[in-house]
Amino acid sequence: MSAGDTATELVRDVIIVGSGVAGLSAAVYAARADLEPLVLEGPEPGGQLTLTTDVENYLGFPDGVGGMELIQNGKEQATAFGAEFTHGTVEDVALESRPLELELSDGTTLRTRALIVASGASARWVGADGEDELMGYGLSTCATCDGAFHRGDDVLVIGGGDSAMEEALFLAKFADSVTVVHRREDLRASEIMADRARTHEAIEFRWNTELEGIHGSRETGVTGATLVSHPDGYPANRAANGADVERETIEIGGVFYGIGHTPNTEFLEGTTVERDESGYLFTRSDDAGRATTETAVEGVFAAGDVADPNYRQAVTAAGTGSMAALDAEAFLETLEHANPVASELSA
Amino acid sequence: MSAGDTATELVRDVIIVGSGVAGLSAAVYAARADLEPLVLEGPEPGGQLTLTTDVENYLGFPDGVGGMELIQNGKEQATAFGAEFTHGTVEDVALESRPLELELSDGTTLRTRALIVASGASARWVGADGEDELMGYGLSTCATCDGAFHRGDDVLVIGGGDSAMEEALFLAKFADSVTVVHRREDLRASEIMADRARTHEAIEFRWNTELEGIHGSRETGVTGATLVSHPDGYPANRAANGADVERETIEIGGVFYGIGHTPNTEFLEGTTVERDESGYLFTRSDDAGRATTETAVEGVFAAGDVADPNYRQAVTAAGTGSMAALDAEAFLETLEHANPVASELSA
Repeated sequence: MSAGDTATELVRDVIIVGSGVAGLSAAVYAARADLEPLVLEGPEPGGQLTLTTDVENYLGFPDGVGGMELIQNGKEQATAFGAEFTHGTVEDVALESRPLELELSDGTTLRTRALIVASGASARWVGADGEDELMGYGLSTCATCDGAFHRGDDVLVIGGGDSAMEEALFLAKFADSVTVVHRREDLRASEIMADRARTHEAIEFRWNTELEGIHGSRETGVTGATLVSHPDGYPANRAANGADVERETIEIGGVFYGIGHTPNTEFLEGTTVERDESGYLFTRSDDAGRATTETAVEGVFAAGDVADPNYRQAVTAAGTGSMAALDAEAFLETLEHANPVASELSA
Repeated sequence: MSAGDTATELVRDVIIVGSGVAGLSAAVYAARADLEPLVLEGPEPGGQLTLTTDVENYLGFPDGVGGMELIQNGKEQATAFGAEFTHGTVEDVALESRPLELELSDGTTLRTRALIVASGASARWVGADGEDELMGYGLSTCATCDGAFHRGDDVLVIGGGDSAMEEALFLAKFADSVTVVHRREDLRASEIMADRARTHEAIEFRWNTELEGIHGSRETGVTGATLVSHPDGYPANRAANGADVERETIEIGGVFYGIGHTPNTEFLEGTTVERDESGYLFTRSDDAGRATTETAVEGVFAAGDVADPNYRQAVTAAGTGSMAALDAEAFLETLEHANPVASELSA
C-alpha cells in the first residue's frame, strides 16, 4: 500500500473502526471535542448489542433498553455532535505511515492521524437450526447479560471450555436446571472451573452430545432443542458421515452459547499492534501503571471487546470508548504541538 | 475494632461504598447476580454528577440526560434488582479480618465478604462567593463534560497546574477566549502543558489574581466574576490581612475550576490498599496485563473516580463499576468453593 495511489487528499483527525457501543461512545467524545470523527460501520453495524433484545444492566435505564435502541440512540447522539458514519470494512492498514492509512475492502484508502480500533468480537455460533431466528429471543451468547431472564427455566449451555463453565455457573443462580451440552466427554475447561461446575447440584452434563436445532419463535421464545449423541463424541460430524446417532428433542426455556468469541482483528495481522493468542488486542498502562487505551503503535487506540476478553459488557465498552477518544485527543494535541507546520500542511 | 462488640450477625456478600455512577453500576450488576448488595450513600449521595445539569456525553441519551436524573434512574434500576441503599459514611475498616469489617461514623459495624470502593473524588472548590448557587449552572469542575456548552463564550479557568492547563486547552476549542486565573505568577503545570497553553492564541493569563465572586443566577447562568489581584500574589490572603488589592468585575459566560480533585480514600489510610501520593487507589492487572478492579487486598475492589485520576467520566465510572461487581462475583465464587462450610457458617 503506497501513499500516493488511491489516497484521497483528506486526512482525518480520527477514524473509528466499528460502530458498536465502544465505537459510538468514542464517536460521541471525539465529535464533542470537535475532531469530526469518521466511524466505519463494518459487516455487523451496531455490533453484538444488535443481537440482544433487552439490556437491563446498562446504567441509566431503569426499565431496560432495547439493544438496537441503545445503538440507535448512540448513533443519533454521535451524529448530533458531528460524527460521520460510513459503511466500510478495513482490509489492510499501513500503521508505519504518517498519517496512518487504511485500505477498505472496496479499494478506498483513508488517511488519519489517529485510529481507534473498536471492531469488537463476534460470538461463535454453533450452526444449529433456528439460531438465526432465535438469537436474542431465548438464545444468547452472554449469561451475564441475559441470565436473569431465565429464573425458574431449564436451560442449556453449549460448550466445554472455561466460557461455558462460567456461563453455567452464572445461570445456576437463576435457572431451575442447567445442562451443559458438550460434544466430547472431557471438558476443555481449567480444572478449577470444571470442578466447580461438576460439583454444582443444579448443573448436569450431556457428554458426546451436540445441539442440532433450537425450537420456538420470537413470540414464545425458546421452547425446546434437538440434541444428537454418539458414544464416540462429535455426533454431528459422525451423522454427516452416515453413522447412527441418537436424536432427542427436549423442552427447555433458554440456550446459551459458550463456545467463545473471536475478536475482529485480522486486519491488524502483520502490524506491531500487540495481540494475545486469541487475537485480542493489548493496551498499555501509563507510567503509574494505570490502564490506557494506547496500543503499541503510537496514534492507534483500542476500545471495547476487541481488547477485552474478560468483561465484554455494553457499559464497559462505552467506558473504554470514551477513554480511547480522550487518549486520541491528547495524542493529537501533542502532534500539533510537536510539529505544527507539518500538521497544517498535511491537513 | 474487634469482631465481636458491635458487629451485627449479618454478613453481606457485597458492600458498595459510594452511590455515584460507579457505585450504582456496581450495584446493578451485583444485584442482578443475586448478591443483594448494600450501597452506602456517603456525605455526597449520587456523587459528582449531582453537581451537573446536563450530561451530553453519556452514551444512550441523544438529547442528553440530567446529572441528577441519571443518578436517580440508576438508583431505581439497582433497587429493582434487589440492591439496598442506606446512608452511612465509613470511618474505619478492618481489611485483615474475614469477613471484612467497616465501621461507620454512627458507630455501626458492618461485615462483608467483598467490598467495592466507589467513594469517588471530590473536585476542590475555590470558596468564591456564588459558587454554591452556580455550580452546574455555568460554573463547572469538568471542561470535558461542560466545555461544549460554551461555544462563543468568554470563560475563566481557575488554577495553575496541569488540570487547569488541560481545561484551558480543551475550552479553547469552543470559547471565544479563555482566561487562566492563577494566584501566583508561575505555573505549577508541567513545562509541556504550560508551554502549550501559553502559546495558544485564544488563552490569556491573569497572574497573581484570584477569583473572589461569581455572578449570575440559575436562570441566566454565569454572567460575570470579581477578581482580586496583588503584585506579590495570593491576593485574597493579603486582602484578609489588610493589604490593598486591585478588585475588578468582568463579564464572562463560564467559570471552570481546575484546582484538582481529592479522592475520598481517607478511610483506607493504614490499610494495605495501595494509593498514589494524591490518594487515588491503584488497581491490579491480571496475569495477561489486562486491567482489573482488584486492589492489593483480596476481596476489596475499586471502581470509578476513586481509582481514576485521568479520565473521570460518568461513562468510564459506570464501566469500572460493572467490572468491580463482576470481579467481586468471581471472588465470591472462589471463596465458596474454597471453603463452603465456613462460608455457610458465617452466613
